[in-house]
Amino acid sequence: MDTQSLSYSHPRTSPYKVGVPPKQKFWKEFTTSLKETFLSDDPLRPFKDQPVPRKFILGVQAVFPILEWGRNYNLSKFKGDLIAGLTIASLCIPQDIGYAKLANLAPQYGLYSSFVPPLVYALMGSSRDIAIGPVAVVSLLLGTLLRDEIDPVKNPVEYRRLAFTATFFAGITQAALGILRLGFLIDFLSHAAIVGFMGGAAITIALQQLKGFLGIKKFTKNTDIISVLQSVFSSAHHGWNWLTILIGAAFLVFLLAAKYIGKRNRKFFWVPAIAPLISVILSTFLVYITHADKRGVDIVKHIEKGINHPSVKDIYFTGDYLLKGVRIGIVAGMVALTEAVAIGRTFAAMKDYQIDGNKEMIALGAMNIAGSLTSCYVATGSFSRSAVNFMAGCQTAVSNIVMSIVVLLTLLFITPLFEYTPNAILSSIIISAVIGLIDFDAAILIWKIDKFDFVACIGAFFGVVFVSVEIGLLIAVSISFAKLLLQVTRPRTALLGKIPRTNVYRNIQQYPEATKVPGVLIIRVDSAIYFSNSNYIRERLLRWLTDEDEKLKSGGLPRIQFLVVEMSPVTDIDTSGIHALEELFKSLEKRHVQLILANPGPVVMHKLHASKFANLIGEDKIFLTVAEAIETCSPKFAEED
Amino acid sequence: MDTQSLSYSHPRTSPYKVGVPPKQKFWKEFTTSLKETFLSDDPLRPFKDQPVPRKFILGVQAVFPILEWGRNYNLSKFKGDLIAGLTIASLCIPQDIGYAKLANLAPQYGLYSSFVPPLVYALMGSSRDIAIGPVAVVSLLLGTLLRDEIDPVKNPVEYRRLAFTATFFAGITQAALGILRLGFLIDFLSHAAIVGFMGGAAITIALQQLKGFLGIKKFTKNTDIISVLQSVFSSAHHGWNWLTILIGAAFLVFLLAAKYIGKRNRKFFWVPAIAPLISVILSTFLVYITHADKRGVDIVKHIEKGINHPSVKDIYFTGDYLLKGVRIGIVAGMVALTEAVAIGRTFAAMKDYQIDGNKEMIALGAMNIAGSLTSCYVATGSFSRSAVNFMAGCQTAVSNIVMSIVVLLTLLFITPLFEYTPNAILSSIIISAVIGLIDFDAAILIWKIDKFDFVACIGAFFGVVFVSVEIGLLIAVSISFAKLLLQVTRPRTALLGKIPRTNVYRNIQQYPEATKVPGVLIIRVDSAIYFSNSNYIRERLLRWLTDEDEKLKSGGLPRIQFLVVEMSPVTDIDTSGIHALEELFKSLEKRHVQLILANPGPVVMHKLHASKFANLIGEDKIFLTVAEAIETCSPKFAEED
Repeated sequence: MDTQSLSYSHPRTSPYKVGVPPKQKFWKEFTTSLKETFLSDDPLRPFKDQPVPRKFILGVQAVFPILEWGRNYNLSKFKGDLIAGLTIASLCIPQDIGYAKLANLAPQYGLYSSFVPPLVYALMGSSRDIAIGPVAVVSLLLGTLLRDEIDPVKNPVEYRRLAFTATFFAGITQAALGILRLGFLIDFLSHAAIVGFMGGAAITIALQQLKGFLGIKKFTKNTDIISVLQSVFSSAHHGWNWLTILIGAAFLVFLLAAKYIGKRNRKFFWVPAIAPLISVILSTFLVYITHADKRGVDIVKHIEKGINHPSVKDIYFTGDYLLKGVRIGIVAGMVALTEAVAIGRTFAAMKDYQIDGNKEMIALGAMNIAGSLTSCYVATGSFSRSAVNFMAGCQTAVSNIVMSIVVLLTLLFITPLFEYTPNAILSSIIISAVIGLIDFDAAILIWKIDKFDFVACIGAFFGVVFVSVEIGLLIAVSISFAKLLLQVTRPRTALLGKIPRTNVYRNIQQYPEATKVPGVLIIRVDSAIYFSNSNYIRERLLRWLTDEDEKLKSGGLPRIQFLVVEMSPVTDIDTSGIHALEELFKSLEKRHVQLILANPGPVVMHKLHASKFANLIGEDKIFLTVAEAIETCSPKFAEED
Repeated sequence: MDTQSLSYSHPRTSPYKVGVPPKQKFWKEFTTSLKETFLSDDPLRPFKDQPVPRKFILGVQAVFPILEWGRNYNLSKFKGDLIAGLTIASLCIPQDIGYAKLANLAPQYGLYSSFVPPLVYALMGSSRDIAIGPVAVVSLLLGTLLRDEIDPVKNPVEYRRLAFTATFFAGITQAALGILRLGFLIDFLSHAAIVGFMGGAAITIALQQLKGFLGIKKFTKNTDIISVLQSVFSSAHHGWNWLTILIGAAFLVFLLAAKYIGKRNRKFFWVPAIAPLISVILSTFLVYITHADKRGVDIVKHIEKGINHPSVKDIYFTGDYLLKGVRIGIVAGMVALTEAVAIGRTFAAMKDYQIDGNKEMIALGAMNIAGSLTSCYVATGSFSRSAVNFMAGCQTAVSNIVMSIVVLLTLLFITPLFEYTPNAILSSIIISAVIGLIDFDAAILIWKIDKFDFVACIGAFFGVVFVSVEIGLLIAVSISFAKLLLQVTRPRTALLGKIPRTNVYRNIQQYPEATKVPGVLIIRVDSAIYFSNSNYIRERLLRWLTDEDEKLKSGGLPRIQFLVVEMSPVTDIDTSGIHALEELFKSLEKRHVQLILANPGPVVMHKLHASKFANLIGEDKIFLTVAEAIETCSPKFAEED
């Protein structure tokens, strides 16, 4: 390589001094990092320098965004919201009835949950596109967790009371996370884990529908695939009702065809949106005139007419069930939150407006608390209905109000008409709805991008499908955490070489044309040095040295005399890290190798000085860049190069 | 600034292409990362290319290092070991008796634990300096945890059985961590947390000694400082025994003076080492001839003569106590391990030999399993005795064998002589021993280096002192984890500027002389981009942009047109991270700001390509260095500069 390259960029002058940042006061450092953790979005910014009455108005508006956007509301916006609201209402009514069954509750509770929570959300929420109501995954999760405690068939009243208790504490959890500004906690469930979990839940829910779809009377209470398939096949020769299957299959084909049409041409988004309601109407009429219910076709039979009862007195505020309700509420609340926030973010990014995560959590929490007091169970944002809402041209949360009013009218006047609705249709509707939760493309992309993420994804999937929803969730969270911990335990290190005709040192693996500098080993440490990895980093650096020395020895080349540690990615170091550096320095001294540091950042420089390590190795062994380190420390080698 | 600087180093040619590493096969990638995690020390290296019989011998030697170093053992080494062994034996005998009381066991169990475990360790361990036996902190922890389950006064037999059960599972835990190569798990307890925990434990232990020291009969069972001081002062006017206090205080002064002499002049290290035994002998003789035990001075009364009984049948392998034993064993085993490994590492670094952490854990585990079968409780490496061992000139683990033989002879012949030893002396010995665990200097250094570490340290300390040992431990672990999670949730970002007369871009906070490039915002992201921080990073980058634009606007300067993200520290990115980049790109497009990436590493480059993000922003927007990015993308600005 050309010897010119090294000299033209850096005239041999004294090296540039590595900056030590001015020492910050402890209190300032502490408050800054606290602010960055909890108030990173600077929520008080608009309040700054405002008179008191204005601050009050801003405060109220912050809690009820409707006061802000409501002032600019107009007829053209309402047109969009009305159409969107009617569309999602027609979609949600049949879904609600089905989802309530997933939660082992009577059908009207699904409708109740599409009445009160959307209203509260419309006042407090900041997403314009989310459609609020019961959703499949949360219903299933809640149903499974509740049934572990109380049998819904034997003790329906206690079961329902525990459901309201769990809903109440789900709301408290959500609101608390928002108020305490701990919203970032839900970021700990990785995208990959959610994809796997949702896919698994979709399959589990679809499998559960086989009961209604095949008209099986005796069905397992477990949700894992093996128990369910055993249940299905053991009842094959006498338990299946062929008329039920016929009706269910016919309408399932209709629903899937509608879905396909909607997917092919986005103009026809309304086809899959109203198909469920059409199916319900048609099939109900069909059963009513053919008396199919007499021939073994299971029907809904009874939905209570009228609006929600107050349920404050039903919530367990004392006793054994309080703790169970709290536990179930926390789990269901977190999962519901994850779904709602993901939806909110997705659509906000599409329309380019901001969602305040913490505020959103308070809104969702308030809506579930209000719901739990009015006979609703946990509601959240629904993926499928939000997409329909968006495509139908919703403008604001008013579409949720429209939907809520339609549900109210349904509860007041129409519920008796659902008497002859066959359960098989509800099953078909749920099956066609949850199929959309299985995201093959996302799973394939995850496989391509990150194998470890894929393990999390598939782990969560299998956990849900083969064991249970909770276990799947547990696996998802554990693998996500394991990944984070692995990152801070076994950070990467890279051997650097000089890129030809530049002054730049880069990873030799990435740039095979980069050349090593004889007698010098340049290693980049790719992580903050903390107690969790300090010993590993020290050992790894020594291992690099041993390996390289062995190679050089077998090649008859001179041994390594300088170890340059490129510290650019080392953003922080703690006391254990400093200890490890000291030990490294001692070991290197014994081997007659000089330790040199390149580009330590401000925090690291500060701590190297505070701990006197900078004095130990010598200030003149710390350089601004690898290039300067190489040049100044081993001029002999640099010129020989 | 001089306009020369930018042009002389980079002749305006086409920018250097950022390398995309050759795609690795999934299987290879997977095994490499697995190997780095679990086999980072490459334990099978010596076995490579060896004939089978040689492999067998190496394998046996790997389990029993004594077979390796034993062959070079000679008389001069034995001289060192003999003196060191006798010294630590004289120190351990009185300590053992006292520590057994901390664990609520009869005194002989302390001596038993200094007989069998050191022998096993000598065969299997790789540290040459560690002194094995019961230690204060583990004894206290074990005693507290066991007493929560069984009252040692009412049910001494069951209590003892549970102690052996816990010891057995402590050994199993330690050995399992070593065999499964999960030794790195103990790195999760940070240095700072250990300093705080040890300091707190020392104070708690010293406070517990007030019972023996003041001769109080009725003493609280809690270990927190408030309960203990209440106990002490409420018994002040009738419960204290003045003769006891006189004896205890006199010998405490003697012990502390001995300690001081040993510290002042390292030649006299043996003075504090034999002072405890001298105290015991003197005080026992004194009590015997003055009949002080008749005047309320508590004495040891009885130590069983003879060697350890087998205790295999005492271990609970079934029933309720099995699970409790497992739980206590895991906690005690981990804490014991932490202490032993820290000692091993410290002395290995001093004498510059290697300790294999995982092998060491297997040795410690085997020794505790063997101990649990022979009436011993959890033994580990003792800080104070190891230091004495080192200073007395030990050469190998043979000093442990010498100590063990002395303890054996004590058990066989001398124990009846301890009958008249006053408990106050044992308390004085323990107090003077644990004082050394309070490491003020370390705490001050931690404060100087890292405030967050200090919070972990002081949290653990207060947890132990004001609540209990378990709570202190829990606080220590939680804060350590919180720190790691915070690092991956709220990574740092830095605004970069150009350092005058170079081509180097660095943090403006660290180098205030660095200058911003007009129209360009250069931000460095200081962490891997993962699901846990991807949203934060996206928001933070946008916030940097908004803040800078506002500043520029108020100064009447042109707005930002390019956002250069320096990716050098971004060692990895996952699917959530890619999503965040995509969303960032969309938001920037809406603001007419061009996104540019500088120096993505090999893994990141690979994933940017796999996800097609590189195509989305354009391959020509990814540069090798910030300098090239600035130059090529905004030649206008670069020249104006």
